Amino acid sequence: MTELVAKKLNLEHEMVLCSSTGIIGRQLPMEKIEAGVAAIELSKDKGNAFAEAIMTTDTHPKRIALEFQIEGRTVRLGGVTKGAGMIYPNMATMLSYLTTDAAITHEWMKTEVKAAVDDSFNMISVDGDMSTNDTCILFANGLAGNTSIDAGHPEAEIFRQALRYVTQYLAREMARDGEGATKLMIVHVNGARDKADAVKAARAITLSPLWQCALAGGDPNWGRISAALGASGCALDQARYDISIGDVQVMKHGLAAQYDQEAARQAMAGNEVTVTIDLHLGEDKATAWGCDLTHGYIDENTLYTR
Amino acid sequence: MTELVAKKLNLEHEMVLCSSTGIIGRQLPMEKIEAGVAAIELSKDKGNAFAEAIMTTDTHPKRIALEFQIEGRTVRLGGVTKGAGMIYPNMATMLSYLTTDAAITHEWMKTEVKAAVDDSFNMISVDGDMSTNDTCILFANGLAGNTSIDAGHPEAEIFRQALRYVTQYLAREMARDGEGATKLMIVHVNGARDKADAVKAARAITLSPLWQCALAGGDPNWGRISAALGASGCALDQARYDISIGDVQVMKHGLAAQYDQEAARQAMAGNEVTVTIDLHLGEDKATAWGCDLTHGYIDENTLYTR
Repeated sequence: MTELVAKKLNLEHEMVLCSSTGIIGRQLPMEKIEAGVAAIELSKDKGNAFAEAIMTTDTHPKRIALEFQIEGRTVRLGGVTKGAGMIYPNMATMLSYLTTDAAITHEWMKTEVKAAVDDSFNMISVDGDMSTNDTCILFANGLAGNTSIDAGHPEAEIFRQALRYVTQYLAREMARDGEGATKLMIVHVNGARDKADAVKAARAITLSPLWQCALAGGDPNWGRISAALGASGCALDQARYDISIGDVQVMKHGLAAQYDQEAARQAMAGNEVTVTIDLHLGEDKATAWGCDLTHGYIDENTLYTR
Repeated sequence: MTELVAKKLNLEHEMVLCSSTGIIGRQLPMEKIEAGVAAIELSKDKGNAFAEAIMTTDTHPKRIALEFQIEGRTVRLGGVTKGAGMIYPNMATMLSYLTTDAAITHEWMKTEVKAAVDDSFNMISVDGDMSTNDTCILFANGLAGNTSIDAGHPEAEIFRQALRYVTQYLAREMARDGEGATKLMIVHVNGARDKADAVKAARAITLSPLWQCALAGGDPNWGRISAALGASGCALDQARYDISIGDVQVMKHGLAAQYDQEAARQAMAGNEVTVTIDLHLGEDKATAWGCDLTHGYIDENTLYTR
């Protein structure tokens, strides 16, 4: 497949990368692919068409583009991605493509993309099912004409922040558009002993089917958050941790807090629900994104290969 | 609670154990409990009533009793258990009670119960949500009059096999009666490098919501089995492992096998579906039990606290 594309576009073979999604174990329909590759036309204004072309069970395209200044020059960073099931990236059927015209050293780019992916795509879950072919690729062609960015570049932080913004935006939108999802779940864990614990705790909440069902029903059943937190294996002091849903603190010092039931229901009513956990054990924190579990997920996945 | 019961039945306080299920974070209604304890009447024929009394979202009671001979004496071993959600025991809202009239040393009983639980209750999953209060208790009163069984007892193996039979029966029935479940999933992993890997691989298949959905739909989408296997982290040789659904081999040496589609659908059609994986890396094996994921699970869990 890469050979066909390289030949069509007069590129070096190594310049073409291949991504895949679909039913595992089925041979790809090479006839269709050959015809498709033969019909490729490069175009400056077809980014949106690409974002739509890669959709599978996604309900809408996910894309973003930023412009910012480095060395007084306008630099662009764009990204498109697709979800929407078998999503529990540890780098999954998540395919994500980033492009920039910034000049960046290869070494610094590898470091920064890995770090940005860890805090974005690797922090989302739709169903806890890790895919066989998660992909995130950043293409940088250097056309902005800046001095190549590395760790020592005085404006490296600007690119880093842009990369973080783009990857976290795309990750969040992927979680929001999970198969059958009606609500985005945002989980902040603060005060963790270390970063690994913060990640473990935050992801565990997004992974709980029981809490995902409660979310679907708008039911502030925080015991399920607490149970998932305990089962996560993160360091936990039973007498210290706090849990809030939106602005409503439902657990204080590891026990049921006094709170207004109606306010808690209101905090669950919108299409974005935030859970904030403070472990009060250290300074580390993490944010994970997930979604609710609905009939829609099941309907999309019971007869997939038929 | 234990004090009330001990007083009512003239027992030592330490002889009473307490189990709990229900909404996490709600205070128990002690008035009802006090009235209930006051009304307790001991009876020799109310084991079945107990099995029904502990049901929550279970659709039917789970119980079993065996009789066997040790030293020529009749020994009895009985068990009851409840499921049916928040089930991913690592010792969850699984409550299980075993009783025997065999005389057993305390030390051997601890060893054997732990080993039996690891191969039964700790190998089931309904939803991957670990409970806060999994319980398995074996009461042995010694009334059968045998010499107390320990590791050196010539007929220890008879009791061990009975204990394995009872715990695995109850575990399997719990998986079959998972919330909303319509099919029991049985996963055998053979040829694993070590026991831990066999357990990891077998449980990973029962934990995949995508495969659980395929199971619900009777869809032999074995790519989801393979993906879950790969994501499990068990040692795997891509060119060697085999997967069968029922008697139909769907993967051979890590690739799609030639098989009859209709036979594969038939293998998924019943209310018990067996997945057999051979890793061809060693001698170790494990069996896990799970169920499908249906609208019923979601319906039972979206508005649980209302």
